[in-house]
Amino acid sequence: MARVTIADIARKAGVSTGAVSYALNNRPGVSEETRARILRVAGEMGWAPSAAARSLSGARTETVGLVLARHPSTLGVESFYMQFIAGIESVLSERGYALLLQVVPDTDAEMRTYRQWRAARRVDGVIMVDPRPDDPRVELLSGPDQLPVVVVGDPSLTGGLTSVWTDDAAAMRECVRYLHAMGHRRIARIGGVSYFGHTTIRDAAFQEECALLGVVGLSAETDYTPAEGASATRALLLAPERPTAIVYDNDVMALSGMGVAREMGVVVPDDVSLIAWDDSPLCEAAFPRLTALSHDVTSYGAHTARRLFDRMEGAEPGAFLDSTPALRPRGTTARRPRD
Amino acid sequence: MARVTIADIARKAGVSTGAVSYALNNRPGVSEETRARILRVAGEMGWAPSAAARSLSGARTETVGLVLARHPSTLGVESFYMQFIAGIESVLSERGYALLLQVVPDTDAEMRTYRQWRAARRVDGVIMVDPRPDDPRVELLSGPDQLPVVVVGDPSLTGGLTSVWTDDAAAMRECVRYLHAMGHRRIARIGGVSYFGHTTIRDAAFQEECALLGVVGLSAETDYTPAEGASATRALLLAPERPTAIVYDNDVMALSGMGVAREMGVVVPDDVSLIAWDDSPLCEAAFPRLTALSHDVTSYGAHTARRLFDRMEGAEPGAFLDSTPALRPRGTTARRPRD
Repeated sequence: MARVTIADIARKAGVSTGAVSYALNNRPGVSEETRARILRVAGEMGWAPSAAARSLSGARTETVGLVLARHPSTLGVESFYMQFIAGIESVLSERGYALLLQVVPDTDAEMRTYRQWRAARRVDGVIMVDPRPDDPRVELLSGPDQLPVVVVGDPSLTGGLTSVWTDDAAAMRECVRYLHAMGHRRIARIGGVSYFGHTTIRDAAFQEECALLGVVGLSAETDYTPAEGASATRALLLAPERPTAIVYDNDVMALSGMGVAREMGVVVPDDVSLIAWDDSPLCEAAFPRLTALSHDVTSYGAHTARRLFDRMEGAEPGAFLDSTPALRPRGTTARRPRD
Repeated sequence: MARVTIADIARKAGVSTGAVSYALNNRPGVSEETRARILRVAGEMGWAPSAAARSLSGARTETVGLVLARHPSTLGVESFYMQFIAGIESVLSERGYALLLQVVPDTDAEMRTYRQWRAARRVDGVIMVDPRPDDPRVELLSGPDQLPVVVVGDPSLTGGLTSVWTDDAAAMRECVRYLHAMGHRRIARIGGVSYFGHTTIRDAAFQEECALLGVVGLSAETDYTPAEGASATRALLLAPERPTAIVYDNDVMALSGMGVAREMGVVVPDDVSLIAWDDSPLCEAAFPRLTALSHDVTSYGAHTARRLFDRMEGAEPGAFLDSTPALRPRGTTARRPRD
């Protein structure tokens, strides 16, 4: 038997398809009498939602979902997410969409959220961030009849799901080569949370390029906060053989590292060179201005949102390179100090 | 005639009230056959949603709305909103609620969003930020049968609507008195956008307290970015009679002001004292550590969300003082330099 459509119900009840949509979606906009007639007719015709409902614009949620599995107290520190969300919103607002944002403690809660959103049809699609190797979220969202999704991260981590990514490995290698060319032979990397895929990718590129060039590569792991960036910098600068250059995984750790160097009387860039990942207005406002890996995070968010709309409109999954972060040498990098 | 309830329909159709809720709210969870029977029965009984639907938990949206009328490019710079949102989310997640976030270009678009959300029942309540004198949003949200709302701002700006606020005037006065006590007689304030009510309140308190103490009070207006904070600082430090202390309206402008002073060879705090509003991990990680007006923004967001739940559950409107920002003297303030 052919599936009953909204148009069938509208014809039989003698109303517009819009009125049927209002009545079936339990919204104001039709009189009680009309609603009653529509419900009766729909029931008699054996109407059911799902596929049929989706072809009707009134059944769209006009909402896109984003779940952040981070502790609220750490979320406010980095400017990355607010910039990224601002970019998403710039595309959403053009289309009258809103962003449903949920902050949860862990991956299990994130997966529960996706299941609930799908069951209750709360969003038309989702943006997933911080993919990891063997990520259970990728498996969940790859299942049959799942929500359209775009994953923000390297295609090697996203199964067959659509990804929007930046080539962090290439940027990290350029960064090491640049420091090597300026004479640095002992370089440290102060990285973020190690279970994030992009941390692993940056780590591997850093170690590989150091090995290739015969440079000593030191690594420290942090939680991205200025406090841990400061501690890691202090430990490196106090070590018997200290590095002559440090590459940070975000802007606020590089800024706090600069403060530690100043406090210890280690001159930037004469004694130690510093580079920040994710350039920001703060990097440009610091003195000396911070050398940084620059990447337009707001435009990254906008790009991601556009790919999600494509996906929701039926485009095939794909992997889309957003950009390779560009090295912007400024005042915190210089030739290696003479021994 | 008594209003038809979900329970009436359930009894008549021989199903659970949960099944009726699924069918009427167009959600999965019942078979096609059962859905058809429920719709037919509901139609025959003349069922209509609104008040009846609201008494049913299934009809709640479990969503709270927040509209930010800011340009996406400026949103990512300050850590305030991400910290504030993180606080809201910490309360929402306890109750299984999500935040519907929309970034719009201006107040008109913000008001359109409230009207649409209300008409389409997309949220259970809203949090409104940045109230202004004679704010048209306050008038709109004070109308009959409007969405429950909590305004983040001074009660003098929020009509009779529920407000959660910080006593910025008291904090600003303390700040001026502290600088005066350390011998400063020429103090500048680098403020934010002047049409925000809290900017006006801080401005007035600053000027009044300066006048009271016989201190010269200088003011500059900015858009909160590090770039404008740097320009305003440069202009002040280049003036023939420069201030010996500067109070900033956010942390990132104070940090960039510190960079400008360093670049110009003006020593902080020996030549000029600096104070940042809204203390942050960045203020603590800077060197010298930034003296700041400290206020737990994440807990401010959480407090606001709790008041909104109270309001949605029927509490009377009220004005709730969250806190008075506390002055935390650190390394960027000192006695006035000798002439």
